Amino acid sequence: MTESATAPETQPIDPAVEAALQASAEARANTLLEFARIPSVSAQPEFAEDVARAAEWLGDRLRTLGATDVEVIRTAIHPIVYGRIHEAPGAPTVIVYCHFDVQPVDPIDLWETAPWDPFVRDGRFVGRGVADDKGQIVMHLGAIEALRAAGKAPAVNLTFVFEGEEEYGSESLTAWLPENRDRLQADAVVISDTAYFEGNLPAITIGLRGIMYAQIDVELSPVDLHSGQYGGTVQNPANALAKILASLVGPDGRIRIPGFYDDVVALTDEERAAIAALPFDDETYRAGIPVEALVGEAGWSTLERKGARPTLDVNGLWSGFVGEGAKTIIPAHAHAKLSTRLVANQDPAKVFAALRDFVAEIAPPGVRVTTHYIHGGDPSLTPMDHPATQAAARAIEAVYGAPPVYIREGGSIPVTAVFENGLGLPVVLAGFCQPSCNAHAPNEWLLVDNFERGTRVIVRLWDELAALRA
Amino acid sequence: MTESATAPETQPIDPAVEAALQASAEARANTLLEFARIPSVSAQPEFAEDVARAAEWLGDRLRTLGATDVEVIRTAIHPIVYGRIHEAPGAPTVIVYCHFDVQPVDPIDLWETAPWDPFVRDGRFVGRGVADDKGQIVMHLGAIEALRAAGKAPAVNLTFVFEGEEEYGSESLTAWLPENRDRLQADAVVISDTAYFEGNLPAITIGLRGIMYAQIDVELSPVDLHSGQYGGTVQNPANALAKILASLVGPDGRIRIPGFYDDVVALTDEERAAIAALPFDDETYRAGIPVEALVGEAGWSTLERKGARPTLDVNGLWSGFVGEGAKTIIPAHAHAKLSTRLVANQDPAKVFAALRDFVAEIAPPGVRVTTHYIHGGDPSLTPMDHPATQAAARAIEAVYGAPPVYIREGGSIPVTAVFENGLGLPVVLAGFCQPSCNAHAPNEWLLVDNFERGTRVIVRLWDELAALRA
Repeated sequence: MTESATAPETQPIDPAVEAALQASAEARANTLLEFARIPSVSAQPEFAEDVARAAEWLGDRLRTLGATDVEVIRTAIHPIVYGRIHEAPGAPTVIVYCHFDVQPVDPIDLWETAPWDPFVRDGRFVGRGVADDKGQIVMHLGAIEALRAAGKAPAVNLTFVFEGEEEYGSESLTAWLPENRDRLQADAVVISDTAYFEGNLPAITIGLRGIMYAQIDVELSPVDLHSGQYGGTVQNPANALAKILASLVGPDGRIRIPGFYDDVVALTDEERAAIAALPFDDETYRAGIPVEALVGEAGWSTLERKGARPTLDVNGLWSGFVGEGAKTIIPAHAHAKLSTRLVANQDPAKVFAALRDFVAEIAPPGVRVTTHYIHGGDPSLTPMDHPATQAAARAIEAVYGAPPVYIREGGSIPVTAVFENGLGLPVVLAGFCQPSCNAHAPNEWLLVDNFERGTRVIVRLWDELAALRA
Repeated sequence: MTESATAPETQPIDPAVEAALQASAEARANTLLEFARIPSVSAQPEFAEDVARAAEWLGDRLRTLGATDVEVIRTAIHPIVYGRIHEAPGAPTVIVYCHFDVQPVDPIDLWETAPWDPFVRDGRFVGRGVADDKGQIVMHLGAIEALRAAGKAPAVNLTFVFEGEEEYGSESLTAWLPENRDRLQADAVVISDTAYFEGNLPAITIGLRGIMYAQIDVELSPVDLHSGQYGGTVQNPANALAKILASLVGPDGRIRIPGFYDDVVALTDEERAAIAALPFDDETYRAGIPVEALVGEAGWSTLERKGARPTLDVNGLWSGFVGEGAKTIIPAHAHAKLSTRLVANQDPAKVFAALRDFVAEIAPPGVRVTTHYIHGGDPSLTPMDHPATQAAARAIEAVYGAPPVYIREGGSIPVTAVFENGLGLPVVLAGFCQPSCNAHAPNEWLLVDNFERGTRVIVRLWDELAALRA
């Protein structure tokens, strides 16, 4: 890690553009700080105007950079920002997707500094959104700005789709994309919302897990019952919920819902070998969280379990009395939120149906048990050998002097599957954060070095993608 | 059930006392209403002065009735009221125990009338505390008052111990009793804080369950983790808690903690036959709660499971995200409150140790699991054939024209075991509420008929107890 931008030894990009980037380093850093000062939290209604303000800020920036058809599109929730720089006739068209909304800052007391007053220190940007995902937006903006300063245009035609709802389910964009195919004609999508591999090793993400999020409600009676008067005669809904949840995953970590694994695409021996070859140390990972031990499905490595195997986690539990001391009740009801992370080619709707049916089958007597679907998103898996992926790999190698690794991320970007399955476009997940950037946690940070090199990877990526059609 | 006091066909008590009771019916009802207007909620600190006011009210009443040594004893929490009417030289001494604190009124919106503005309508007192336990205190006061009006004294020596903390754990009284043996010399204890059997069938309670209340804490990490990034690599504390709780009770309803049943006194065939002979209908009981089905330990009837078998109930659960919608986290920690109801001769401390050891043994890897003791109380079982119990049975038969049934209650009055085991005194649980009086719920009520007949049972009980020594 370096204290500031480092010019690579070989010249991966046009010298005039490189000179422009060096001249604009301070200005581009300030642009990110300015953008990150807007508290565009999508999940909390009190920040709705700030999300809208971030959208306007971004629209203005695009116009300044010479984008056309710039539009801040109102939705039922938060805006989408659209624009184009189509100045490369005959070259491929690439959709650039990032998001300008950010996670909430709670727990605020764990921030060492004010989350909305970002700054640069010791080679890092620190503040909410500097990594996820405003830093990556400003890399894209900075790449174009430097091209402009050098009197050039991007080598491909760029269509920008910036979202204000990524941290809140992407409902509006998921609906908007298929309704706007005409202005989304393209050859590929570049999504910059992921991170490098452990140790800040440049990486291209080829797999994202999908998700199926549900709630189980167990109801006994209209009101809490006295545990002395009724204990032993009625089903306790909290005990019953524990039985149900305990039945969903076996002691070997395998999910016991019948049919759950039916559609999972098996990892090939080559894929397992490639994952095993990644420089990853279980103990470093464990200590970095930190947890007492790493635990998961038997027969798979930590990295396989993290990115290439489905999981089932309880996300929340509530029932009965939770105050200080004691209250001797049999709770009237008990509830769990739970979600499964899915891998290709699992289908959230099908997985939900299997869960619902299994829960109904194993539900203890004497209580009403219902399972509700909350939301879902498809998993995504990009072929490593797709020309667009390989173009991104060459761009990274040109800037870093070594090829990237290919990784599968455990998280979900549901809109990826909409681009892939809904619009039939190949997606390249080219993101530039370092891992453990505290994306959803206090003290979010981004290395200035990743910011600078990432901007150069983007410039080079347009050249590599342009070369595909040539 | 009758609309007002009914004079029994035979004359169970002295005609002059009966006449005095009939003359004072309205005044005694008003006394209960006055007492019940004091919101003496022991569990909520904002009512502490009201609990103290109820104690003073009661002390004044005792003095008015000619009691001596009346004292409102301050404790670290709520007062104890002590007094004596020792006017029967040579007769046995009986401690009378009731409590003047009441349950909170939440959920207040389920009350059909103001809980602190009690009234009489359709043959019922309605208001917080009219049944549990102020009504029963006023029955004792009214019995003495009627004797006084008839120019008499109680046939036994009475020592009053009225508590202001019964609904809050009885900590102060539990400590105070063994420290005050000298002023608690007695032959028996009469506790009036129980109810009749289903259908308002006069009953003497011979068994009360004990309790052991604990909390299990499962901790994974300092903060919630992203369920996509970490799902599959770490133990989920909510899933782990579900596994632990599910392991505590088998599908046959038997508690699986090793050694749990070791000290349980087996029901004899005669006891089981007596329980089976009680007029009890499962379907009426089920529909009255209401629940979908009655469920419990295999091999035992509903009444046996309710009063004579131990149970384990989760009282509360909390972990992770419990709001609307979805948050994709692996919770940092998960918690459960749970309690076991114990039967003779189980020991709360021993049961806690067995639980703690078993939980430690079955705890899944990768999380820290701890089990804390919150509180405990011994079970209580009075021999049916004890002379004091039989005296109470004769008093009930004299007033009601039929002998009482003997029942085991599922709830706990921990101070019972302190009188029994700590002071070595036989306890008679002679309570006069109808079942389902909403003791801890909104719209608490007491039949005026139970209030009137209960007062007569008390008068007759002193005579029956006096006859024991004669």
